[in-house]
Amino acid sequence: MTDTADTQPGWFSAEELQSVRGRMPLLYVQAVPVRVDEAGMVTHIGLLMRADESGDFNRSVVSGRVLYHERIRDALLRHLEKDLGPVALPRIPASLQPFTVAEYFPTPGITPFHDPRQHAVAMAYIVPVTGDCQPRQDALDLVWLTPEEAADPKVREEMTGGQGALVRQALAHVGQAL
Amino acid sequence: MTDTADTQPGWFSAEELQSVRGRMPLLYVQAVPVRVDEAGMVTHIGLLMRADESGDFNRSVVSGRVLYHERIRDALLRHLEKDLGPVALPRIPASLQPFTVAEYFPTPGITPFHDPRQHAVAMAYIVPVTGDCQPRQDALDLVWLTPEEAADPKVREEMTGGQGALVRQALAHVGQAL
Amino acid sequence: MTDTADTQPGWFSAEELQSVRGRMPLLYVQAVPVRVDEAGMVTHIGLLMRADESGDFNRSVVSGRVLYHERIRDALLRHLEKDLGPVALPRIPASLQPFTVAEYFPTPGITPFHDPRQHAVAMAYIVPVTGDCQPRQDALDLVWLTPEEAADPKVREEMTGGQGALVRQALAHVGQAL
Amino acid sequence: MTDTADTQPGWFSAEELQSVRGRMPLLYVQAVPVRVDEAGMVTHIGLLMRADESGDFNRSVVSGRVLYHERIRDALLRHLEKDLGPVALPRIPASLQPFTVAEYFPTPGITPFHDPRQHAVAMAYIVPVTGDCQPRQDALDLVWLTPEEAADPKVREEMTGGQGALVRQALAHVGQAL
Repeated sequence: MTDTADTQPGWFSAEELQSVRGRMPLLYVQAVPVRVDEAGMVTHIGLLMRADESGDFNRSVVSGRVLYHERIRDALLRHLEKDLGPVALPRIPASLQPFTVAEYFPTPGITPFHDPRQHAVAMAYIVPVTGDCQPRQDALDLVWLTPEEAADPKVREEMTGGQGALVRQALAHVGQAL
Repeated sequence: MTDTADTQPGWFSAEELQSVRGRMPLLYVQAVPVRVDEAGMVTHIGLLMRADESGDFNRSVVSGRVLYHERIRDALLRHLEKDLGPVALPRIPASLQPFTVAEYFPTPGITPFHDPRQHAVAMAYIVPVTGDCQPRQDALDLVWLTPEEAADPKVREEMTGGQGALVRQALAHVGQAL
Repeated sequence: MTDTADTQPGWFSAEELQSVRGRMPLLYVQAVPVRVDEAGMVTHIGLLMRADESGDFNRSVVSGRVLYHERIRDALLRHLEKDLGPVALPRIPASLQPFTVAEYFPTPGITPFHDPRQHAVAMAYIVPVTGDCQPRQDALDLVWLTPEEAADPKVREEMTGGQGALVRQALAHVGQAL
Repeated sequence: MTDTADTQPGWFSAEELQSVRGRMPLLYVQAVPVRVDEAGMVTHIGLLMRADESGDFNRSVVSGRVLYHERIRDALLRHLEKDLGPVALPRIPASLQPFTVAEYFPTPGITPFHDPRQHAVAMAYIVPVTGDCQPRQDALDLVWLTPEEAADPKVREEMTGGQGALVRQALAHVGQAL
């Protein structure tokens, strides 16, 4: 999974986290930021653009760990603020029922999702945002694409770890770009 | 089902609609208006209060028919504006997946829902509203209740046709008043 | 929408149904028949093959009207038996929450779904079937495709009215062929 | 959360697991076993009865951890077999979309769910079972209750950690005992 920066390491040292990563699934949340019209129709999908360690660019949705004693709602808020800035005004869903659960395995091919570092299980939500988005930290930019653009195979190739599949699931869930 | 006023009769005369009502299921939408906090938690549920033909008061959610050539999204918007006024600022869901489908039969006991006039099938949605609500038409008032208040058996008794069951389903879906 | 045969006309004459069709949305159910393995993974999707009035072949899922005083569950059972035969052993879902709601408009382009005859709103379900399927009536065959085959653009072209989009939504909902 | 026995400790020693438990959320699955009729209606809910360490009886649904490199589907199968025996014939859902996500906090009152040992996040599924259930290990019995019986406040009192709330959410999701 293309990881968005983790501002809080939790209560683990880097070594401890490394050790845990190889031995149990880690709980993640993922948020697909969208713009909607007055009738709730998704008009645009927001994808973060960043450079990875090798200097290549890739696109991703908002992603991050749920910390000890943190509610899923608060983890969503925290990661959205981390990636989209403090005035994005995300609308966290009233229900915690995710549109899908994405299982990222260190071994490719078990599911459409893959993360070489760990076994992560992400509850995925579609989150309308209405404010200004100012990507922070390591993200270079947030780009708003129409559903058609987001479904394009070229865009998909720029998403690693199966996040392109996640975006397609999100689009299908909102009845778009089918 | 406690019906909220239908501003547009569609393309039917009253007699024709009456005739159709006895012969096929009618498609409805229902919206449970809610107030949410920054993290998406439902803090209040909005119930309309109105007097029925016999002068009794009852409570209800927002309800109404989907018209010919009308999208579900637009039917939701229309009925929410009709019942909550023009500045309620409802957030129509990005996905059309309802939290439940309520089947109102003219015969009681087949499902928890009952409508003596007709067989109606309602797709039900939870709709956060952020603006001022000014109930119009025949509604006397819109009352905001906490999830605990809304789950109270007394409130439930004031809801006819099984709408109390619908409110409990909505509360369960958002993880409240369990 | 490619319509699968309607064995019961309801309480309408053909002329009356025709008249109603042009004036209000009709309630449909659609079922995507699937084969699943022991862990619930979808291994195959069943598509009906039939000839239309002009002699062309097309593929479709199971579709049909909900009749007056008929529960959605019973409409699903009836249409599945009509199209797959009496020993298909469909597993109707415990929850009526559909994976999507498909809005078929007589005007193309409003949604991905189109039905020149009518405005139909279909609640769509994924239905595992475990028994023998013997397509009846006008269907020539039921073909089981893998998720990859079902997602193929060629298969999609053989589905009219946007049913290819519906199948993609079903596949996305079960995490397949993304 | 009333925990059902964990047959596989994962790759952790008891001390290590204890240490991790206090520092990150653990990923769980929960399954509400149900009996359904031909039309998919839930007729009974299965609750496990067991004695806790102090000798008191309590009721619970099927619960357990997701292990490293284990799919959610396989975790569901494993825990269902562990608690209901090898011939229960559970029907794991085709879609991983849970009906709810239950957050168990070591601190009571943050959510309806509480687990003094740990912060656990459970994806919850309704699982029809059609075979014979033979509770194994520490469970004394599996009792099938009607939806009305399962919703009874007395039954609820026998469920600890908020599992009574989870059962109510499951019932609401299938449109029962409202």
